[in-house]
Amino acid sequence: MATAQPTTDVLAEKHRPTLDQALATLRSRAYWSPYPEHPKAYGADGSLDAEAGLAAHRAVLNTRFDLDQPGTDGWTGGEISPYGPELGVEYPHADPDVLLPAMRAGLPAWRDAGPEARALVCLEILARISARTHEFAHAVMHTSGQAFLMAFQAGGPHAQDRGLEAVAYAYEEQTRTPAGRASWSKPQGKRDPLELSKEFTPVGRGVALVIGCNTFPTWNGYPGLFASLATGNAVLVKPHPRAVLPLALTVRTAREVLAEHGFDPNLVALATERPGEGIAKTLALRPEIRIIDYTGSTAFGDWLEANARQAQVYTEKAGVNTVLIDSTDDYKGMLSNLAFSLSLYSGQMCTTPQNLLIPRDGIATDQGPKSYDEVVADLAGAVGGLLGDDARANALLGALVNPDVKARLEAAAGLGEVALASREVAHPDFPDAVVRTPVVVKLDGSKPDAEAAYLSECFGPISFAVSVDSTADALELLRRTIREKGAMTVGAYTTSASTERAVEEVCLEESAQLSLNLTGGVYVNQTAAFSDFHGSGGNPAANAALCDGAFVSNRFRVVEVRRQA
Amino acid sequence: MATAQPTTDVLAEKHRPTLDQALATLRSRAYWSPYPEHPKAYGADGSLDAEAGLAAHRAVLNTRFDLDQPGTDGWTGGEISPYGPELGVEYPHADPDVLLPAMRAGLPAWRDAGPEARALVCLEILARISARTHEFAHAVMHTSGQAFLMAFQAGGPHAQDRGLEAVAYAYEEQTRTPAGRASWSKPQGKRDPLELSKEFTPVGRGVALVIGCNTFPTWNGYPGLFASLATGNAVLVKPHPRAVLPLALTVRTAREVLAEHGFDPNLVALATERPGEGIAKTLALRPEIRIIDYTGSTAFGDWLEANARQAQVYTEKAGVNTVLIDSTDDYKGMLSNLAFSLSLYSGQMCTTPQNLLIPRDGIATDQGPKSYDEVVADLAGAVGGLLGDDARANALLGALVNPDVKARLEAAAGLGEVALASREVAHPDFPDAVVRTPVVVKLDGSKPDAEAAYLSECFGPISFAVSVDSTADALELLRRTIREKGAMTVGAYTTSASTERAVEEVCLEESAQLSLNLTGGVYVNQTAAFSDFHGSGGNPAANAALCDGAFVSNRFRVVEVRRQA
Repeated sequence: MATAQPTTDVLAEKHRPTLDQALATLRSRAYWSPYPEHPKAYGADGSLDAEAGLAAHRAVLNTRFDLDQPGTDGWTGGEISPYGPELGVEYPHADPDVLLPAMRAGLPAWRDAGPEARALVCLEILARISARTHEFAHAVMHTSGQAFLMAFQAGGPHAQDRGLEAVAYAYEEQTRTPAGRASWSKPQGKRDPLELSKEFTPVGRGVALVIGCNTFPTWNGYPGLFASLATGNAVLVKPHPRAVLPLALTVRTAREVLAEHGFDPNLVALATERPGEGIAKTLALRPEIRIIDYTGSTAFGDWLEANARQAQVYTEKAGVNTVLIDSTDDYKGMLSNLAFSLSLYSGQMCTTPQNLLIPRDGIATDQGPKSYDEVVADLAGAVGGLLGDDARANALLGALVNPDVKARLEAAAGLGEVALASREVAHPDFPDAVVRTPVVVKLDGSKPDAEAAYLSECFGPISFAVSVDSTADALELLRRTIREKGAMTVGAYTTSASTERAVEEVCLEESAQLSLNLTGGVYVNQTAAFSDFHGSGGNPAANAALCDGAFVSNRFRVVEVRRQA
Repeated sequence: MATAQPTTDVLAEKHRPTLDQALATLRSRAYWSPYPEHPKAYGADGSLDAEAGLAAHRAVLNTRFDLDQPGTDGWTGGEISPYGPELGVEYPHADPDVLLPAMRAGLPAWRDAGPEARALVCLEILARISARTHEFAHAVMHTSGQAFLMAFQAGGPHAQDRGLEAVAYAYEEQTRTPAGRASWSKPQGKRDPLELSKEFTPVGRGVALVIGCNTFPTWNGYPGLFASLATGNAVLVKPHPRAVLPLALTVRTAREVLAEHGFDPNLVALATERPGEGIAKTLALRPEIRIIDYTGSTAFGDWLEANARQAQVYTEKAGVNTVLIDSTDDYKGMLSNLAFSLSLYSGQMCTTPQNLLIPRDGIATDQGPKSYDEVVADLAGAVGGLLGDDARANALLGALVNPDVKARLEAAAGLGEVALASREVAHPDFPDAVVRTPVVVKLDGSKPDAEAAYLSECFGPISFAVSVDSTADALELLRRTIREKGAMTVGAYTTSASTERAVEEVCLEESAQLSLNLTGGVYVNQTAAFSDFHGSGGNPAANAALCDGAFVSNRFRVVEVRRQA
């Protein structure tokens, strides 16, 4: 399928400085991003501005999204925006017996191109995606239900950052051995030395499968996609059936860039499914599939880990995130920080806090001692205040991603005393959008019947104010929650050095990422690429972290050829 | 158990230059080793010379090898040297319910010491082992059956090299994030920047289990042992019941060094088993065990991968190694190189060639065309010549490691036409040693009934001269053998550029390490630490390579603590 000899020279000048800065930032862990966060930053240099992005999005609605993939045996679609409208897009349905072998055809040339050329091609794909961030924002908004600005930032530059981060890790990992032939000479005393010429080639494992999720199709999809592609694999993208469009746009861009630079476009392909078809299970067990990245339920993640034995499997599954509240010297800052964390995208983030552990005798604050009831009431007040204005509420909450979340939200009110009731928010532009404020439910941590609630992931705008006997009790419950249920994030508020040390010790021992005393504009549910690790890979919530060396190093192998010198 | 504050400052001066040189060599892949290969290099600077090493070995025979481990509930032993004598050493038998929790007690201090201190302690352990290389050589010889010089080199400096290599990879991987607190500041236009302080701590996963093998107790044991220890884990060493002593000496040394530097000696412990007890299976499923390194049969390796789901599992299993013979411009060099490869340690290396694929119409050589029968006869002659002298044969062959190998060797003669018969060699010092020269059996690659022989690992001094229709046929059989059976090594002889390219392509696609046209003093079965990868981790013979980033990067996780700045 490749129409020309691969040419990536022109890309080096364009993207090598970005790659170098990414490599440096991974070591410093400082703030950096090459992709602008502000919507108004787009429009120049060939990128789409707000109007053009919206037009591009509208142009794709109610069309057939043709990718010219081998083995297309039909068309399927049916996405409905959480804001109401049907997207009306039809995507190719693939026959894996045709598509998978076709995806393997381009692997030798992709391998021979080497780590730098692969990284540069990935950076060009990301740059093209970046230029269409306004279009992607609408696609992410109308599949995930995120509010526009969040869909723009998390689905655009932040997702692109995570993709670039994976490319940089992949490049560094593959270039640990010398490029070209290395000479080896072992002295033998008075005899001639033993001499060999050695050549080390990083080779991908084969075809990688990315199984996308409903809530963050690009943010959670890009690390695996780009890590696998940059390490010499082909990548088959299987989106969540309710969030196909952002990944279909991604696949189209990748195929264009690959073909333009002389590589086989089938190195990246899309696999969509008919309603109820469940192709993830079938694809995951195909012998061609050697790597799987998955974000979703624990049940299916565990199934993949146990059954897809021919593949390296990277999973992000359910977890129960805790915030331990011991004391604070900024009560107001704590409340407003927590209120934002609980509200952002209606709590539909894998990093949103669920259980707030509060001593039943209350906590010390800069505004004097506060009882458990006062803390809970003040938090409810802070959330209520934050979301009191409907326009602001809509901008923060977005829409509920699917009916399951709505059902869980409605059921949550029956789990205990409701400290803050959820309310419906009307959306001015989308009357069918299901927008709800979070519910906060009080649970008594000493009552065994409350455990079933707070020791399960209750995904959505639901949190539990769990009363505990003491901070020591909270620490023990935190440990048990991480160990048994996993956690993507842990938060804690304390002015006590010994409590701080004790929370750190639990997180170090149970392998969970900790945010301490956040009272400003950084929230426990947010992580920054190149600096923060998303998950740890060491507790049941995820078997990998985004991104680290382990996330990339087993996606390829190094084959050595030794020759008599 | 720690008797003092950990102190490793003195080790920095002693070992930091060695660590730095190891790190540099991993990038250059040049020849380097800090551990002398020559037996006469030992004796100064506190190291044991030949006489002192032998005396130390004799002093341990017929004694109780006490390690002062918690949970010791009895004593067990029973090793018999492949050279005949009983070793008479008794080792502690452990109650895992006591030992495993005790091993966890020292983990926080070991974690807090940080990557450099852990690396330095590991280098001190290796230095102490190096100083006793003469003693280890006897222990390896009388458990593996290797001849003395090989036991000395492969069991001593080469094993130590592989341990150091793992420590260096582990150090590099853990120091990718900044030590101490890193500051992060994100500009917010006209508003104040968002600021955080971030701290990254590499944390081990828990207790690692090393399951040793009979043939290379130190060489195959050290990479996993040192990779896990250097990444902050405790390590439980479960030796093969016939090869306990070399690993018991290792564990004793590690415990001494740990204790001397203020760490809990129980971070490294020994688990020996009573006859038929099979404790590897029990230990492998314990929740405390989070990492397993295993060298041995495919059946048990596959069982570990499928069942020890709570652990990261690194396995080296069986494989079928092939040498493809197409043509050569140094017929004599090829024959002598192959003869040595087949003879070294009686073919009891996971890297020894088994199948020699030779076109039935013969090959082109610098001595004119040679028919299949001529090549096989000349190879038989070369092996016969190499091993014609009993002293030289004993020095090369060593003893058969166990009765299974002897039984396989005897049965092999019935598999086809014997081109070279095995002969018994008497050992001047050990009349009970079972020393045998290799058998070479002719098999017709076109006959389906021969497949069962050449497509199974036939571990020991057995090789098959498989006739093939053509080099193309050989390439296809090579590909199938690697894909279905796995391979630790592939060798090829060819003067044709296109055949060379075709063999490379098979090895790149099937992920196997290739040696081309070896005719001098480097053999396909040998790999050099810091330069060559042992296995690829990409075919069924092993799921990991010794050593690369992937071998170390998932033995620890990085836990991040973010604080409001």
